[in-house]
Amino acid sequence: MLFQVEMDVIVTPDTDMAVFEERKAAEKAYSHELQRSGKWRHIWRIVGQYRNISIFDVESNAELHDLLMALPLYPYMDVRVTPLCRHPSSIRDDDS
Amino acid sequence: MLFQVEMDVIVTPDTDMAVFEERKAAEKAYSHELQRSGKWRHIWRIVGQYRNISIFDVESNAELHDLLMALPLYPYMDVRVTPLCRHPSSIRDDDS
Amino acid sequence: MLFQVEMDVIVTPDTDMAVFEERKAAEKAYSHELQRSGKWRHIWRIVGQYRNISIFDVESNAELHDLLMALPLYPYMDVRVTPLCRHPSSIRDDDS
Amino acid sequence: MLFQVEMDVIVTPDTDMAVFEERKAAEKAYSHELQRSGKWRHIWRIVGQYRNISIFDVESNAELHDLLMALPLYPYMDVRVTPLCRHPSSIRDDDS
Amino acid sequence: MLFQVEMDVIVTPDTDMAVFEERKAAEKAYSHELQRSGKWRHIWRIVGQYRNISIFDVESNAELHDLLMALPLYPYMDVRVTPLCRHPSSIRDDDS
Amino acid sequence: MLFQVEMDVIVTPDTDMAVFEERKAAEKAYSHELQRSGKWRHIWRIVGQYRNISIFDVESNAELHDLLMALPLYPYMDVRVTPLCRHPSSIRDDDS
Amino acid sequence: MLFQVEMDVIVTPDTDMAVFEERKAAEKAYSHELQRSGKWRHIWRIVGQYRNISIFDVESNAELHDLLMALPLYPYMDVRVTPLCRHPSSIRDDDS
Amino acid sequence: MLFQVEMDVIVTPDTDMAVFEERKAAEKAYSHELQRSGKWRHIWRIVGQYRNISIFDVESNAELHDLLMALPLYPYMDVRVTPLCRHPSSIRDDDS
Amino acid sequence: MLFQVEMDVIVTPDTDMAVFEERKAAEKAYSHELQRSGKWRHIWRIVGQYRNISIFDVESNAELHDLLMALPLYPYMDVRVTPLCRHPSSIRDDDS
Amino acid sequence: MLFQVEMDVIVTPDTDMAVFEERKAAEKAYSHELQRSGKWRHIWRIVGQYRNISIFDVESNAELHDLLMALPLYPYMDVRVTPLCRHPSSIRDDDS
Repeated sequence: MLFQVEMDVIVTPDTDMAVFEERKAAEKAYSHELQRSGKWRHIWRIVGQYRNISIFDVESNAELHDLLMALPLYPYMDVRVTPLCRHPSSIRDDDS
Repeated sequence: MLFQVEMDVIVTPDTDMAVFEERKAAEKAYSHELQRSGKWRHIWRIVGQYRNISIFDVESNAELHDLLMALPLYPYMDVRVTPLCRHPSSIRDDDS
Repeated sequence: MLFQVEMDVIVTPDTDMAVFEERKAAEKAYSHELQRSGKWRHIWRIVGQYRNISIFDVESNAELHDLLMALPLYPYMDVRVTPLCRHPSSIRDDDS
Repeated sequence: MLFQVEMDVIVTPDTDMAVFEERKAAEKAYSHELQRSGKWRHIWRIVGQYRNISIFDVESNAELHDLLMALPLYPYMDVRVTPLCRHPSSIRDDDS
Repeated sequence: MLFQVEMDVIVTPDTDMAVFEERKAAEKAYSHELQRSGKWRHIWRIVGQYRNISIFDVESNAELHDLLMALPLYPYMDVRVTPLCRHPSSIRDDDS
Repeated sequence: MLFQVEMDVIVTPDTDMAVFEERKAAEKAYSHELQRSGKWRHIWRIVGQYRNISIFDVESNAELHDLLMALPLYPYMDVRVTPLCRHPSSIRDDDS
Repeated sequence: MLFQVEMDVIVTPDTDMAVFEERKAAEKAYSHELQRSGKWRHIWRIVGQYRNISIFDVESNAELHDLLMALPLYPYMDVRVTPLCRHPSSIRDDDS
Repeated sequence: MLFQVEMDVIVTPDTDMAVFEERKAAEKAYSHELQRSGKWRHIWRIVGQYRNISIFDVESNAELHDLLMALPLYPYMDVRVTPLCRHPSSIRDDDS
Repeated sequence: MLFQVEMDVIVTPDTDMAVFEERKAAEKAYSHELQRSGKWRHIWRIVGQYRNISIFDVESNAELHDLLMALPLYPYMDVRVTPLCRHPSSIRDDDS
Repeated sequence: MLFQVEMDVIVTPDTDMAVFEERKAAEKAYSHELQRSGKWRHIWRIVGQYRNISIFDVESNAELHDLLMALPLYPYMDVRVTPLCRHPSSIRDDDS
């Protein structure tokens, strides 16, 4: 079951960058693990912004919620979730 | 080069559905052709809405513009384009 | 799996009320059927507006999409979907 | 008399988490008490967000106001209230 | 129990003014009746706009909804409802 | 001459509550005085929010401005003013 | 007593221009009359838009409302009113 | 003196395309003339939209207003104007 | 050449009022000087807000930018600029 | 390939101006270098604001992203990117 997730990372001149960088490294490892498991299907960066657009493939709303709340950078993020389904015009097997 | 494209299709009780359905059939054929060529990488439907989220892979801004303006349903659409690039955390070959 | 769904019904002085009332009767029957099946768990009217807040319980995003697109009043509606999950403070068995 | 209440909890990297966690524990106890009394009919978490959608069943606007202002996490919250009433299509006894 | 209600009346150069004026006369009579009964406590016009701000005093959300849906000009209106309660600083007996 | 005034009071976990409470007491006394003088005709609390809706009756824009700028809690407030006039449907002597 | 008034004039390709031009001529005459009387102190056009910014000088909210509702182009307008008062830094006699 | 001008062209399935195309041809000729005169310094299309971003170089606000109101497609447009000036970091002679 | 300028002054309970008051005195002197020179044609206070609406009369966009950036309170301000021109209905010599 | 980039620089009374000015000098040097290379085609200041509108000419989305993330003032900025293409009415060789 697919969801689009947009993640904005809020960093300001006041952010404690030592703490942030530590969490960012943890975030990368966590993202790699979820990508390898197939749960985090895609991640793209929006040009010029500290923001990504991702596609998650999960069993349920609850699983997605748990995965997102465990993001190491979650306290720095503004997250928006959009439920997706197969488009009748899609010809790809993996668009659902 | 990747772009996220959101397409809202505006249909109201006043829409001439005969004309619309004709264009919708043309839209499907056109979408299939672009998907097969690899230009239209993904298309997903947003749950409960006449709206899709798509990923296009094109050579240039100009190519994307031409592809979108040729959509048979374009006169019924509200279209928003977001330029994407590879996310440093992505492990997929085809996320860029 | 639970979703909050908000449905605005757009009726103006220009609406053909004969057509609308016919669809409204079909909508009521359809809603009753989905409520009895347990798919449409709750429906409340927002005070002073032609708008409802509903809770759906479905197997998947795709099932929810199909149920919503089949609403007889869908052409008159503006629909927004919010995925829900169990709140850690809930004590009710049926809040998930 | 039913009301939908949306509660956003605002936590940032600057939040004093010791104080916050103390209040969060008090919030949970308070929520349990109100749920058991039947005043707080439902509480759901919005996927990916520190936000809930709740249904309250109270005697009056004043009672709802007093219950909400006493929320231990109120100073961290952005709260929105929507008055509800029975929908003519509802078949459930407890949708009003 | 008090509610603030804002009513925008949407009239355009396309509005059939004969129908509208007929409904407006009915609206005035209906408003007078509700004011005399004490249900519609106040009505003020916003300067320069076809919009009013009103205070209703009703027994329940359901009663308010029924009163508003019966407004003869309802099909021309955009209505917003805000639940009120007594302010701790009020010294007036009739501010609640 | 009547005006609707909406006052949002912004209090966060960072607010110095000792200072705030002192000003709040002064605010209450000031509000009582203006209510007794007839300048501050009504004050209602919006349910679930630190926000009020008030009706002022003043001689001029300038008088209203001076009264509002002297609110002890003004530095914590976001204030919006809407000029009102008598509604042609009003039957109350004091709705203007 | 001064008010800023913004007037947007909504004209579309569907507007009956014969009717509109007739009203526009009446509007101009009406505006001249109010300017000569001193009620309509200033009127400026916003560059590139069918919108003006005006300053009115009236005795009361009610007088302003009556003047605005009598604008011949009112059915084509979206009007917003902002109450003004003398700025403590102004050195002009006629800025209040 | 430079201004950024954004022009949205509003075309719907209801637009009379014969009239529109006639005006569009006139618009192109008018644009060419203004570009050759140096008044309309740049025009770019926004990808996927019937919208352009332009840079005008004019003597005064009044001249810009007259040029824009004379656009043959003006009745179909939503226009926004932003005044520009030389940026202290610019190294180009023609950025002012 | 005329421009409307709106200036919001952002003051919070955290503002260092000693620094602010010093700048406010400088602002007043600067405003008087520009008013006397005719550059700052009007300044009005919006009722109930720390916000003014002003009319500037300048030679060019660049001159306006320089005047605004030199405002002693600029670091506390949110500034919006709207280019104006003579309205065809104006009868005043000094409305352009 | 052209993109419009809007950059808002967020400076408040709390900003450490020594650090900011250092970065601003670096920003200017960086901007000069990109302008000389032809990547940063235009930069204009918006009147009255700490905001610029720029035109970039790059090989790809990825190149634009890298150029923007390397802006010395990026931590103080809010950046928005709009992909552009040649307008069919343009007569300039360098509008694409």
